Amino acid sequence: MAEMLTLTPVCEVIVELGEPLDLGATRDGNRRITPILGGELRGARIAPVGEEHVVDRNYLDLRAVILPGGSDRQLVRADGAIEIDARYTAQTDGGHLVGVRTVGIRRVSHDGTYFRVAVRFETASQSLTDLQDSIFIADGIRERSMVRHVVYRVD
Amino acid sequence: MAEMLTLTPVCEVIVELGEPLDLGATRDGNRRITPILGGELRGARIAPVGEEHVVDRNYLDLRAVILPGGSDRQLVRADGAIEIDARYTAQTDGGHLVGVRTVGIRRVSHDGTYFRVAVRFETASQSLTDLQDSIFIADGIRERSMVRHVVYRVD
Amino acid sequence: MAEMLTLTPVCEVIVELGEPLDLGATRDGNRRITPILGGELRGARIAPVGEEHVVDRNYLDLRAVILPGGSDRQLVRADGAIEIDARYTAQTDGGHLVGVRTVGIRRVSHDGTYFRVAVRFETASQSLTDLQDSIFIADGIRERSMVRHVVYRVD
Amino acid sequence: MAEMLTLTPVCEVIVELGEPLDLGATRDGNRRITPILGGELRGARIAPVGEEHVVDRNYLDLRAVILPGGSDRQLVRADGAIEIDARYTAQTDGGHLVGVRTVGIRRVSHDGTYFRVAVRFETASQSLTDLQDSIFIADGIRERSMVRHVVYRVD
Repeated sequence: MAEMLTLTPVCEVIVELGEPLDLGATRDGNRRITPILGGELRGARIAPVGEEHVVDRNYLDLRAVILPGGSDRQLVRADGAIEIDARYTAQTDGGHLVGVRTVGIRRVSHDGTYFRVAVRFETASQSLTDLQDSIFIADGIRERSMVRHVVYRVD
Repeated sequence: MAEMLTLTPVCEVIVELGEPLDLGATRDGNRRITPILGGELRGARIAPVGEEHVVDRNYLDLRAVILPGGSDRQLVRADGAIEIDARYTAQTDGGHLVGVRTVGIRRVSHDGTYFRVAVRFETASQSLTDLQDSIFIADGIRERSMVRHVVYRVD
Repeated sequence: MAEMLTLTPVCEVIVELGEPLDLGATRDGNRRITPILGGELRGARIAPVGEEHVVDRNYLDLRAVILPGGSDRQLVRADGAIEIDARYTAQTDGGHLVGVRTVGIRRVSHDGTYFRVAVRFETASQSLTDLQDSIFIADGIRERSMVRHVVYRVD
Repeated sequence: MAEMLTLTPVCEVIVELGEPLDLGATRDGNRRITPILGGELRGARIAPVGEEHVVDRNYLDLRAVILPGGSDRQLVRADGAIEIDARYTAQTDGGHLVGVRTVGIRRVSHDGTYFRVAVRFETASQSLTDLQDSIFIADGIRERSMVRHVVYRVD
């Protein structure tokens, strides 16, 4: 029998959003494109609940700014749920570039808001290679004109 | 502060594989296509470690066979890691169809095998609508000519 | 000023279809998956209208069978048009594998049927490298349980 | 026997490019992201060579500016060919939004430069519905910091 999957928080992301472009009912559904203007990625210092605060050494050095030019190409489903599909690029303090893609769902029900994405990184940086070698998920919190994610590695 | 994400095991999947077709070094990289011949999805009866065994009521009724005709279009990276991209269709006991797509990674290191995927379902079945409304991840175990997944809902 | 694009017919394709699986109104729209059971690719001996029949030397040797296991993952739009997204693999007489993806549209109006796709090939075969280095389009004719394409290279 | 496909020029596109971000050798290959800063789409007044100049009535009204925020996520292949994958959004004089995606190839050989893409439009504008109902291809000419396309409908 396999062991349960575990989640390790590895970074926080803040994404700054511009004014959404609402294309309306296109061939793919109700398309809405939200520009990504900037933001930040920071290696996490969060520890799993009930454990001591342990800094994940792989992510200690991750401090990156999100470059303008990204976007979230959403589809607004008939039931009101939003299919998220965001792409953007970040640049680390050391000058390395990291591509980020988040795909997931945001929906509001009487139980609250469910906003979860799968996260895919691509980078040629040797020190960040783990970002390409693992699967990541994140929650999402929408605040005014920004989204805040905590990203977890699936271990 | 957001609460930690939690994982709820919701179903087990067994995927039966055919002989892989190795296309070699194509424009996209080393492409390998593994046919999916059959298999099965079953609603999970697994409970998180340390809790009592609780059957997730949403998934109790899920029992489906995987139809032949799917495939896993893998890319074998230069470092030996395999990018997984599988699509297949399952049919429930009640006759409903469920599309499944798994995207992720399988790599072997001195620490063992890391085989994790994000799972995306699509279905028009009212009783399975939660499969479209949530994010799912899974581990993977390769055994001879099959892959075994435990699929978790990201809560 | 750029010259007009020209089209060079390079091969004919016959795709044998199985019974479609109709998933109904899923998160992505009305999804229908048609299995691809077999078929054939043959290098064209067709010349542009008004010119002498010239055999394109690059394609003279292309003779391949389509392997079972492919599929066309269609979306049936509200206006009745069908978004085509087919993937399959063919094997040449020489044993080389060629991946094929066709993306396009089939719709019926009072002017007749419009069935056109963009075609993308991937192969590691040196003799077929032109298939990876050019853009291709095709018409489509649906006949009972098969589709017939003439594929053109965009020159 | 099917008739030959024909191409009808329908619009010209000018895409203004920013400084490319070179991610280097990522998991997907050598990734380079070129920001799209602006540009323009104009309904074509070009007629096929050898025919009289006929203005395509469907496209007479198309005059749109490309909004900043798009990008071309290229992969630079080992043989030097570039896989193009650009997405951007344009806004017409009438205020309608049109999403554009171009996928194709640019490569340089002793025969010159081959730069061809398949073009996919999405829009909810009734007057531009033909953009969603047909297949389009384009050539491309790179000039300093811009790309110039002539887009053809595949008839």
